[in-house]
Amino acid sequence: MGTREWTNPRSGESRTLVISDHSKWEVLEIALASRRAWDGFRHYPSHERARVLHIIADALGSSAPEVVPLADEECALGLPRLTGEVARTSFQLRMFAEALEKNELLPPEIDLSDAAGPPAGRPELVRHYVPLGPVAVFGASNFPFAFGVLGGDFASALAAGCTVVVKEHSAHPRLARRLVEITRAALHSAGENPDLILSVRGTAAGAELVRAPEIAAVGFTGSLSGGRFLFDLAVSRPTPIPFYGELGSVNPVIVSRKAAHTRAEEIGRGFVDSLLLGAGQFCTKPSVLCYPEGSSVLDYVVDALSQASPVPLLTPKIADAYTRQVAKISASKATNLLKMPAPDRMGAWVAPAVFQTSVAEMLSESSAVQEECFGPAAVVVPYSTDEEALTLASQGGGALVGCVHGEDGDLLAGELVRALATRTGRVVWNGWPTGVSVAPTQMHGGPYPAATVPGATSVGLHAAARFSRPIVFQAVPPALRPAGTAV
Amino acid sequence: MGTREWTNPRSGESRTLVISDHSKWEVLEIALASRRAWDGFRHYPSHERARVLHIIADALGSSAPEVVPLADEECALGLPRLTGEVARTSFQLRMFAEALEKNELLPPEIDLSDAAGPPAGRPELVRHYVPLGPVAVFGASNFPFAFGVLGGDFASALAAGCTVVVKEHSAHPRLARRLVEITRAALHSAGENPDLILSVRGTAAGAELVRAPEIAAVGFTGSLSGGRFLFDLAVSRPTPIPFYGELGSVNPVIVSRKAAHTRAEEIGRGFVDSLLLGAGQFCTKPSVLCYPEGSSVLDYVVDALSQASPVPLLTPKIADAYTRQVAKISASKATNLLKMPAPDRMGAWVAPAVFQTSVAEMLSESSAVQEECFGPAAVVVPYSTDEEALTLASQGGGALVGCVHGEDGDLLAGELVRALATRTGRVVWNGWPTGVSVAPTQMHGGPYPAATVPGATSVGLHAAARFSRPIVFQAVPPALRPAGTAV
Repeated sequence: MGTREWTNPRSGESRTLVISDHSKWEVLEIALASRRAWDGFRHYPSHERARVLHIIADALGSSAPEVVPLADEECALGLPRLTGEVARTSFQLRMFAEALEKNELLPPEIDLSDAAGPPAGRPELVRHYVPLGPVAVFGASNFPFAFGVLGGDFASALAAGCTVVVKEHSAHPRLARRLVEITRAALHSAGENPDLILSVRGTAAGAELVRAPEIAAVGFTGSLSGGRFLFDLAVSRPTPIPFYGELGSVNPVIVSRKAAHTRAEEIGRGFVDSLLLGAGQFCTKPSVLCYPEGSSVLDYVVDALSQASPVPLLTPKIADAYTRQVAKISASKATNLLKMPAPDRMGAWVAPAVFQTSVAEMLSESSAVQEECFGPAAVVVPYSTDEEALTLASQGGGALVGCVHGEDGDLLAGELVRALATRTGRVVWNGWPTGVSVAPTQMHGGPYPAATVPGATSVGLHAAARFSRPIVFQAVPPALRPAGTAV
Repeated sequence: MGTREWTNPRSGESRTLVISDHSKWEVLEIALASRRAWDGFRHYPSHERARVLHIIADALGSSAPEVVPLADEECALGLPRLTGEVARTSFQLRMFAEALEKNELLPPEIDLSDAAGPPAGRPELVRHYVPLGPVAVFGASNFPFAFGVLGGDFASALAAGCTVVVKEHSAHPRLARRLVEITRAALHSAGENPDLILSVRGTAAGAELVRAPEIAAVGFTGSLSGGRFLFDLAVSRPTPIPFYGELGSVNPVIVSRKAAHTRAEEIGRGFVDSLLLGAGQFCTKPSVLCYPEGSSVLDYVVDALSQASPVPLLTPKIADAYTRQVAKISASKATNLLKMPAPDRMGAWVAPAVFQTSVAEMLSESSAVQEECFGPAAVVVPYSTDEEALTLASQGGGALVGCVHGEDGDLLAGELVRALATRTGRVVWNGWPTGVSVAPTQMHGGPYPAATVPGATSVGLHAAARFSRPIVFQAVPPALRPAGTAV
């Protein structure tokens, strides 16, 4: 058995975990086992898939007293937030289950036959959706439940009729493993194949998993560098496979003049609240706040910030990366609004930081203020003209979400919405980007690098389409069509 | 100006065309012009997009007397077939236009707000679809209209709100150019921006087009080698873009014992008819016919084949490739059922060829009988057990379409349908694979290499989804949402 060092992000205490990475050959065996399990699962009709999702939601719910404290020890996100996240994750599993029960997930479509139909007569066509095959899931460290082992990628892949091989995240080595064990035990007890979920450990094992011939698609939430590396592997296979990656996002918030005038305090404080959720480790955090020059929004930002304290990040490595990125922003044309003393505690503690910069710096392609900074840091930018505000909304990379704060009859606000819509997957009006609703039509994705596939979402019912493919049955009698399709 | 040699496929007569490939810089300029046109077109509401599609359908229809003979001279597919193809292509453009007019193309979806909704209350979410941007279209040589300049990729991209840059196909150098000119003139006359369609010429120019930063997606129909080359370029860009390629297919047809007994003549002759359509140059041609050993299906195949004559292929180069592939199959463990004398005419003439081979050879991975042969060649395989028939149905690469000929109460037939469904995009019952209906739910795609994106179709209304991405507006007042979305 191998060992791995693990450091408690709150206390800094280190422990040696007895844990082995999987070898290349083990990964290939695991992918093969997933494929064998899929050969049975692919034929499950909708209501049997739904049953499997409910079994897992139940198991997660009843294991909360064990897994929430374990997650908190590993990730330092706090018991209330992690308890809520378990509820969200169970809800998500059940949302897919209920859609399957009502035949609302990827419903079939029919073109009736029409002998006289243009351009040359037409046979009956029935469009069904079939699962792609075993899916590799690389969860995120910042949402150990909702975007982790049993998160949106897992739920949607299973709902689509795929089996899943999870890459256990190195930031929660015991939790990831435990969630897999709990799920397998629950499936086994219910008479289902535990191999519907399997897992691999280790960075090299993750890469092997993406290369494994049995893997039919990948879901990934994580960093740009790690995600692009795996994306490149997926698309350079002899048979390329879809890689659905969420690789990071710099999310803009634009405040109109009218809104800044009417609701300066609400907006200034709301921004800091949203920024500090989960210690700023949300992919949807408000990264850039653009406000009218001279507005008191800034005063409320500074005031709210002055009440903030250092926070532990997920891991010491993430804290180091945060500290380096904050230093890089400090060295650019940006001013730290309220420099807090560096935390003197062991572990993964860092101080929140909000920088003010100019429109010119924000638009300068090589500036550090344009890069994603994972943790409780953000940039605020005063604009002096409407044109500058619009430029800030429309320029910049692909993002998961953008927000506009505006008022009724606010002419600029409509233009800001349209400008943000050109480069984001979601536009929020008078709200904050954090807190992605688990709702059927939700869109959590966007132009690259927010997502590697511009139309794909990892939240909401449409997430299941990523792991399905349509097949049309032409004049095939109903009794002869496969049972495993969602009808 | 550069020149290019062109050979008439029927007569063998060569001509020098005065025609230049585009340079890298010209391609970048063209992509930029397409982007500028898109900056206007992206805001078109549905009914204005529909109007543009009707303008183009009208222009194509009225230019038929000019472009059909031109296409026939270049491609030798015959006037009746090409006249029908123009009708199909116009119909396809109008199908998208009518779906837009009825707001049935990518309709918006809504989740109403629900303050009490689980897991944590939820805001109103409205899901719209927005166009990706300028699309590069590489049409096929075998359908100069329906999968060419104004074919399915063009129609669906425009319907989605994208502009198009076409790569003119080298197999129809004058037709491709003329279709672009006719379309641009019609757009100009109607007061629309002619740059909604632009084109580039030359192999290197095509590669540059895929690399051009303004290009947001690619539609491709063609060979495995050319398609994979361009796919690799698309996914290795700094910002990868979706590449929707159809790269070839070996399409299986399986005849059950009962069907072979009841309808031997209909099936044997039907197979040869379907095979010879378009001189066997359909991506959906029946490539492999599996029939029960000893059945008289084979006699009717041979009889129908004995009435066939040499045919001109699209180009001398394609004829050469066909001749080489047929020689390769002859050198494998396969018997030519009816060896015709090699055509002694100049141009691109070839003789149809049907080979008989064994189940073992058909399943042998390296055999030439497993490779796609573009042209009027096919393989027939007698099976002796039901198990062999099922293996033939399920083993083999991804394919666009598979067919089963069966009878009522034919137990094996259902299993064959299910086996074919595991590796095809369409399964046909008691019919032939050629003749892809232009119908809303149609699926023309399938597992790799049939398509590079397993869920994508290049025919039917779903084709437009390839060139769109969803965006969710969270609590955004209706008046502030972009006008260009399909509502």
